[in-house]
Amino acid sequence: MAVKSRPGGRTARTKEAVFEAVAALVAERGHASVSMTDIADHAGVAATSLYRRWGDVRVLIMEVATEQLMREHPLPDTGSLAGDLRKWARKIAAGLRDPAGSSFFQALVATAMPGDQQSKMRPAAMQSRLGQIETMLERARRRGEKPPALADVMDHLLAPLYMRALFGTPASDAFAEKLVERLMKEG
Amino acid sequence: MAVKSRPGGRTARTKEAVFEAVAALVAERGHASVSMTDIADHAGVAATSLYRRWGDVRVLIMEVATEQLMREHPLPDTGSLAGDLRKWARKIAAGLRDPAGSSFFQALVATAMPGDQQSKMRPAAMQSRLGQIETMLERARRRGEKPPALADVMDHLLAPLYMRALFGTPASDAFAEKLVERLMKEG
Repeated sequence: MAVKSRPGGRTARTKEAVFEAVAALVAERGHASVSMTDIADHAGVAATSLYRRWGDVRVLIMEVATEQLMREHPLPDTGSLAGDLRKWARKIAAGLRDPAGSSFFQALVATAMPGDQQSKMRPAAMQSRLGQIETMLERARRRGEKPPALADVMDHLLAPLYMRALFGTPASDAFAEKLVERLMKEG
Repeated sequence: MAVKSRPGGRTARTKEAVFEAVAALVAERGHASVSMTDIADHAGVAATSLYRRWGDVRVLIMEVATEQLMREHPLPDTGSLAGDLRKWARKIAAGLRDPAGSSFFQALVATAMPGDQQSKMRPAAMQSRLGQIETMLERARRRGEKPPALADVMDHLLAPLYMRALFGTPASDAFAEKLVERLMKEG
């Protein structure tokens, strides 16, 4: 396919323009109101080439949402697991309170049935969060701390933050810290 | 509007047929692959009357999803809060493992930006769950138990169940019971 034949050149620049257009439009209006034509207009490319490459606007939005959410921020390294988790949870809460971050999270969860292309990308985005948690837990183990299990961090720190973002009452920094405190106490 | 002029008669029967069509189609293919035309064909009504009444297929699907998820099951009343919550959590976990229940949950969270019509219905569906929790907690208080806070049940029992349904590893009954045990221990 023509679009794949020039990595790093025109194709890479086009992809960048398209991704920027998607990010801007989704942040502005939410994923459900963004069409291939809108993206093509905004990026200055032909809608036909977007259809050729991504097929469906939801596939393209999901790809951009995953990239945005998986973007590697430097992981906190404060010297204690409680400190790391507090900083990390506050950053996630802040991201979910931000309109752009919230739009991408909504786009990420707004997928169709298990088994289709978008749903397969959702666990991939989660995988990246699990990798971050695992890194912090491993550091704690090397320091001789007794960290909680990976699943407990997911279920009792990440899940409440996500749930509140989904159901209309985004978490405050104080709430994020309270979750960490409870998790560390419980072990 | 003509469709609203005969409550309990033809209009009510039409609504019932439409809701049944939506439920069947969403359970079969997932909400993202269901169009107004599909629903009209399945229910044996004109697509134009669906557009006139619901405007957008997402509004209609959301209305059916909310109705399905808010349907009042008899709340467990086992004589202890731990028993009630275990039964209630197992039922929610089973619902989320079931393809139809999972489709409706996916439809419920797959809404657009805060502020639009669908997003306002999402907290309404959650409101019904919170009402169920509050009833169980109030009964426990009357028995002299010291129940956890409503928010803690939401964040540490409901959130992990929902999160696992969203990210591809639906919760087992055993997992649901483990969450209740942890919640009751923590208080």
